[in-house]
Amino acid sequence: MRTVVYPGSFDPLTNGHLDVIERAAKLFDTVIVAVAQNTDKSPMFTQSERKQQIAEAVKDFPNVEVETFNGLLIEFAEMKKAQAIIRGLRAVSDFEFEFQLALMNRKLKEEIETIFMMPRESYIFLSSRLVKEVAGLGGDVNTFVPANVERALRSKLD
Amino acid sequence: MRTVVYPGSFDPLTNGHLDVIERAAKLFDTVIVAVAQNTDKSPMFTQSERKQQIAEAVKDFPNVEVETFNGLLIEFAEMKKAQAIIRGLRAVSDFEFEFQLALMNRKLKEEIETIFMMPRESYIFLSSRLVKEVAGLGGDVNTFVPANVERALRSKLD
Amino acid sequence: MRTVVYPGSFDPLTNGHLDVIERAAKLFDTVIVAVAQNTDKSPMFTQSERKQQIAEAVKDFPNVEVETFNGLLIEFAEMKKAQAIIRGLRAVSDFEFEFQLALMNRKLKEEIETIFMMPRESYIFLSSRLVKEVAGLGGDVNTFVPANVERALRSKLD
Amino acid sequence: MRTVVYPGSFDPLTNGHLDVIERAAKLFDTVIVAVAQNTDKSPMFTQSERKQQIAEAVKDFPNVEVETFNGLLIEFAEMKKAQAIIRGLRAVSDFEFEFQLALMNRKLKEEIETIFMMPRESYIFLSSRLVKEVAGLGGDVNTFVPANVERALRSKLD
Amino acid sequence: MRTVVYPGSFDPLTNGHLDVIERAAKLFDTVIVAVAQNTDKSPMFTQSERKQQIAEAVKDFPNVEVETFNGLLIEFAEMKKAQAIIRGLRAVSDFEFEFQLALMNRKLKEEIETIFMMPRESYIFLSSRLVKEVAGLGGDVNTFVPANVERALRSKLD
Amino acid sequence: MRTVVYPGSFDPLTNGHLDVIERAAKLFDTVIVAVAQNTDKSPMFTQSERKQQIAEAVKDFPNVEVETFNGLLIEFAEMKKAQAIIRGLRAVSDFEFEFQLALMNRKLKEEIETIFMMPRESYIFLSSRLVKEVAGLGGDVNTFVPANVERALRSKLD
Repeated sequence: MRTVVYPGSFDPLTNGHLDVIERAAKLFDTVIVAVAQNTDKSPMFTQSERKQQIAEAVKDFPNVEVETFNGLLIEFAEMKKAQAIIRGLRAVSDFEFEFQLALMNRKLKEEIETIFMMPRESYIFLSSRLVKEVAGLGGDVNTFVPANVERALRSKLD
Repeated sequence: MRTVVYPGSFDPLTNGHLDVIERAAKLFDTVIVAVAQNTDKSPMFTQSERKQQIAEAVKDFPNVEVETFNGLLIEFAEMKKAQAIIRGLRAVSDFEFEFQLALMNRKLKEEIETIFMMPRESYIFLSSRLVKEVAGLGGDVNTFVPANVERALRSKLD
Repeated sequence: MRTVVYPGSFDPLTNGHLDVIERAAKLFDTVIVAVAQNTDKSPMFTQSERKQQIAEAVKDFPNVEVETFNGLLIEFAEMKKAQAIIRGLRAVSDFEFEFQLALMNRKLKEEIETIFMMPRESYIFLSSRLVKEVAGLGGDVNTFVPANVERALRSKLD
Repeated sequence: MRTVVYPGSFDPLTNGHLDVIERAAKLFDTVIVAVAQNTDKSPMFTQSERKQQIAEAVKDFPNVEVETFNGLLIEFAEMKKAQAIIRGLRAVSDFEFEFQLALMNRKLKEEIETIFMMPRESYIFLSSRLVKEVAGLGGDVNTFVPANVERALRSKLD
Repeated sequence: MRTVVYPGSFDPLTNGHLDVIERAAKLFDTVIVAVAQNTDKSPMFTQSERKQQIAEAVKDFPNVEVETFNGLLIEFAEMKKAQAIIRGLRAVSDFEFEFQLALMNRKLKEEIETIFMMPRESYIFLSSRLVKEVAGLGGDVNTFVPANVERALRSKLD
Repeated sequence: MRTVVYPGSFDPLTNGHLDVIERAAKLFDTVIVAVAQNTDKSPMFTQSERKQQIAEAVKDFPNVEVETFNGLLIEFAEMKKAQAIIRGLRAVSDFEFEFQLALMNRKLKEEIETIFMMPRESYIFLSSRLVKEVAGLGGDVNTFVPANVERALRSKLD
């Protein structure tokens, strides 16, 4: 039985995130999507709104769970008895920051691995930040986020 | 007749931006410099001050126009019947972000192309941020920005 | 009247190259695909075979021409009265090498610009080298290259 | 039951490779180290010497197997009923090439995932090429490769 | 007699910074650690707290001095009659920003060189930002910062 | 008394190399330019021709010496009682490879430091490879290499 944690702000969840979740769900027994509080920036959606949106979007994957966490990711992962942390890689700049994070996490808890997966190439340009920016300027984001997230963006921005 | 849009914050215009404008003006019939509102950071100059400064700096290029825009860049470009968006590339980190933006814009409007140009190599280190930082600390920026922008920086910082 | 040159080894032409050609053909009056001799590696196809393959693949674009060249690209571009050289950018590693080449070409001939375009994102992984490798190992490359190039690869490898 | 393939030239196996194998062996039920023929460069060790060296070095991991393969990696992985391909990432330049390969492999066989793992940071500088270069110049490589590989290097270079 | 300046925010000093200081102290006659005011972000420690922490941590290096500075780095370096500025490089993203800064500084004062050094590889993942984040979430940072900095972090966060 | 080694193939020496030598000569007591044999590629000039060309180009710098070396760089540096190895950095791709080399050298001999310097920005595009390519195609390289190297290229290529 192998459990992995897929952490992030998910503010909001994009189709790129969803694609990584789906890929991880095929390789591991349980995937726990871990929604961070994101204290250093003011998020568009609250932590519990984000958890709700993801839960709705992944409801058809039987081995995917969604949770929130507030402390150190690595302690959350340990508490959940996860063997690994999953991260999506889209670009070189992602890669560098992810590398630093992964090495830091390895220092904090040697036995939890970080593994990287790649979203579908049509999602490599997608980021929550760009989605918010486009939606905020009135652009149509329906091909970038799940339908329930699009509705949430719309009502938040109206 | 080919029209291109060269968008940016231009807070302030640097000699690197001016160099890209001049190069684009030789390749296309009309270059529209599009000054963004820059809502997520508090700019040093207002959008209309920036438009004014650029208009002054490009007044000798007959096929360059300066405008402000507030919504989605791609909609502004479409309204102006532009065939392409011009972006300057200086460094790998520029490149990655620009790539994301360009792919996003292509998703939003397939028929408007993004093309990248390179400023003179003596300007590759130049950024509006570094210019503001140096000027703010009392450094001389007269080789980094046009004369009218230097005067504006000086009176803003006095 | 603006003419651009799109140089490369094209050993062989991929759908990524073709995509860049098509995009350039919408932005400029004439696009000259310039097939380099590629002296430092031993090519799979001769320079004239590659010219032939490209000519066949672009025969429906009225403003695209295909030529071979052997000396300095920048002199070929000047002889053709081109205003710019077009290069496709797929990745950071491309970018760095392209940057060096473009600065070198600018030193050699200041008035010819280099501009960069981006292929469709589903082609960013495509390179002539990978295509040859996959084809050489018996893989199916029919979604990576035009049909006539696929036939040429097949008969070369049989 | 999840099986992954860890492909490479392994000419020779380094401690960095071994570290990735060990990490993968904790996360998956079976890890198949797949030794490529490496047709485009002339290897220092034959494919079967390399297989032998790895087999010796991993003999204490019960769920690691070593095999050679000659055709397309993705077909080998399919034949082995593997769910994923494992790749080690050390640096940005690795990352870009690996990204291209992974996207290519995904095109060829959608259902086999590529996942990336990170060796111990004290191995990020290690590459088979540097090991051969240092050993070839008479340097001591005993902290970079397993003992049996060091012996093989020594007798090859004497 | 050669003097170099090693500038930074040091908010807080990490073992990676300390490692670079120690390396520079072997190569140059005097190393001046220059603590910047860091006006654009709100630091965790005041400039004089940071100076104090560094002075404590480097008290056994006889040729290392610690000072604060507020204006342009290059003018501080000139005032101190330094021949060079030292910067630590950990990653590609560092490199790009450092390159821009160094070129800008060279424009402002041609005769002061910037030279880059590399921390021990076990520190390449370390950044003041990650240290604050981990400490803020209750993680143990005692292997990442000197003992006196760890105590300061603890009392600040209690 | 501090001695540094500046190693390379210098096939041929470019103005970028010369610029780094000049900068290093201001910061250290002795700079030893170390010409590598370059066994893995067939050089245009022999090791002793390259040594001769550099000696001629640096004859006005009293503290610069030129030597050839054939074994491990780090052993050459130790024999010369050098405290550090100097490397020029032009681009991200340089940076990564240099990083690997420097970490490898540190493993082999902890007490010899590697430090990186930046050539003048108008030389960042320059590489020996591009110079040979341009010269080989009949281009004028007189602004890229010292006069004596240009003459040597010419007579080699006639």
